[in-house]
Amino acid sequence: MPELRKDPITERWVIISTERGKRPSDWHTESSQKSGGFCPFCPGNEDKTPPEITAIRPVGMPRDGAGWSVRVVPNKFPALQIEGGLERRGEGMYDLMNGIGAHEVIIECPNHLAELSDLEPAHISEVLQMYSQRTLDLKNDARMKYILVFKNHGTTAGASLEHAHSQLIATPIIPKRVIEELEGARRHYEFKERCIYCDIIRQEQHSGKRVVVAHQEFIALEPFASRFPYETWLLPARHYSHFEMMAPESYHNLAVTLKETLWRINVALDHPHYNFILHTSPVQEPAAVEYHWHIEIIPKLTKVAGFEWGSGFYINPTPPEIAAQHLREAQI
Amino acid sequence: MPELRKDPITERWVIISTERGKRPSDWHTESSQKSGGFCPFCPGNEDKTPPEITAIRPVGMPRDGAGWSVRVVPNKFPALQIEGGLERRGEGMYDLMNGIGAHEVIIECPNHLAELSDLEPAHISEVLQMYSQRTLDLKNDARMKYILVFKNHGTTAGASLEHAHSQLIATPIIPKRVIEELEGARRHYEFKERCIYCDIIRQEQHSGKRVVVAHQEFIALEPFASRFPYETWLLPARHYSHFEMMAPESYHNLAVTLKETLWRINVALDHPHYNFILHTSPVQEPAAVEYHWHIEIIPKLTKVAGFEWGSGFYINPTPPEIAAQHLREAQI
Repeated sequence: MPELRKDPITERWVIISTERGKRPSDWHTESSQKSGGFCPFCPGNEDKTPPEITAIRPVGMPRDGAGWSVRVVPNKFPALQIEGGLERRGEGMYDLMNGIGAHEVIIECPNHLAELSDLEPAHISEVLQMYSQRTLDLKNDARMKYILVFKNHGTTAGASLEHAHSQLIATPIIPKRVIEELEGARRHYEFKERCIYCDIIRQEQHSGKRVVVAHQEFIALEPFASRFPYETWLLPARHYSHFEMMAPESYHNLAVTLKETLWRINVALDHPHYNFILHTSPVQEPAAVEYHWHIEIIPKLTKVAGFEWGSGFYINPTPPEIAAQHLREAQI
Repeated sequence: MPELRKDPITERWVIISTERGKRPSDWHTESSQKSGGFCPFCPGNEDKTPPEITAIRPVGMPRDGAGWSVRVVPNKFPALQIEGGLERRGEGMYDLMNGIGAHEVIIECPNHLAELSDLEPAHISEVLQMYSQRTLDLKNDARMKYILVFKNHGTTAGASLEHAHSQLIATPIIPKRVIEELEGARRHYEFKERCIYCDIIRQEQHSGKRVVVAHQEFIALEPFASRFPYETWLLPARHYSHFEMMAPESYHNLAVTLKETLWRINVALDHPHYNFILHTSPVQEPAAVEYHWHIEIIPKLTKVAGFEWGSGFYINPTPPEIAAQHLREAQI
């Protein structure tokens, strides 16, 4: 019997069709093999990107030269533009404003062939700290209401360049899905006076059946109402509303948990393409008791996307309990 | 300068990145060439599907035999199941119920090689009337709160069988995106005492710049805050909240407009894969002044889906005014 499950935060129902349960090997995943060729993100080609915003490189080495371990540049084809005013206006019944914002690329490592999950925890930690550093810098611009960090890994996930990179988009509005999460979390807080994500973590730790990785400070789990097969959330066990407000010493532990989670996904699903989205609180808002930052990882296994886009109605052929078990059992 | 545009119904903001404007020929579309092979939807193979629910065939010809022009069967791998009770229950903090509902396949024509857009308007009209007939039948089951008709055309759109078909899913809950639309439309009605879709049609007819096809009874247009390149909406010019309540004589005109719209998309974009979703009012609710049924057609051109899934933040590289112009100019 298939189940209809409700996401406790957004109140979105999904169909978990238990009878369709697939083994990981049933998924056809596209190859993540890199084809090589010219790459503007490789060391030596620093002049092929817009001038860098910042980078981690040994003291004394020049900007826009080689020697960096993590490098941040403006997106060459930005979705939003930094200069100008918002100029909110109408067109008859419609509302629009200028596309003001920032669109940056975080090049995660110099090695063209390495993936984020291949890097040492110390290096992954540098990438994660760079997300925070860029967020804190952009926060100084009061026009920026939300900062969205994400990663498209592989062409199926929307990546156009194969060199490991993440992206950051700063927007003058708070995206709709973020508002939905914030409102859902607020509803729970008003009712229970507890953070809903803290409640989820407690229930998942107790039952264990949807947990993938549980380290001291971070937990990776398959959400109860997973929209997608092997959808995985990574949350700090301690309550933090903002990613960039996390204690500096926590980034290393986050890196360790993230690496293990990505490895388990890679082993179980043969290196799938995936999206990685950092969900955090609006940057201009103070620390909040009701929202809890987390990372959502979505391996790109199903193609039934368009219907789901249009309807908001998800059909997931792999129950999260089974996905969690496969990921726990993966030999890494 | 890119623009941020707000969808007036759902209040979703999208980035229209005018500078990235692509010509239709810039899109890589996957082939819609059919590969043939065994097909359970072809005449002669009626015993390879579950027993038919209904079909259009000459009087006196037997069920589950050949001779039909449109045939409806249960989905062999249904996402939801018709038998049983909902049994709403909790699992700790989570809510779930049994996956009760219906999942049907509407086989649109006997010819394996034909597409919906290839059929004569009279035949397309039969397919559309079948959507209504099945909706009216399922409405008798009070457990069914929403009936979602959609079509995945091509593998990229999620189709697993290439023979032209649509699907119908009847659900015991109203999907989230539908609730958002209903609430948005209601908000506008409370404020203006007018249907927001009627307002959109009037403004679009007046400006003309986002109109693709305007026949007497139906209009096809690119929405102001299009999420996807060449996203196209098809609406009845006259107000109808429920698709299945439309006057019988209107189906032919709808078929004519739908055929022309699909042809324009096929010519301009070289037969793209697409999703087609019928947005209508909840089946158990009476005719309403504030909601207006329509069809949304989404050609599958971009792959940046995952990030947008996660954030609800859409980046559309083709302004709808340019898409509408290309579609109007297509030589059909």
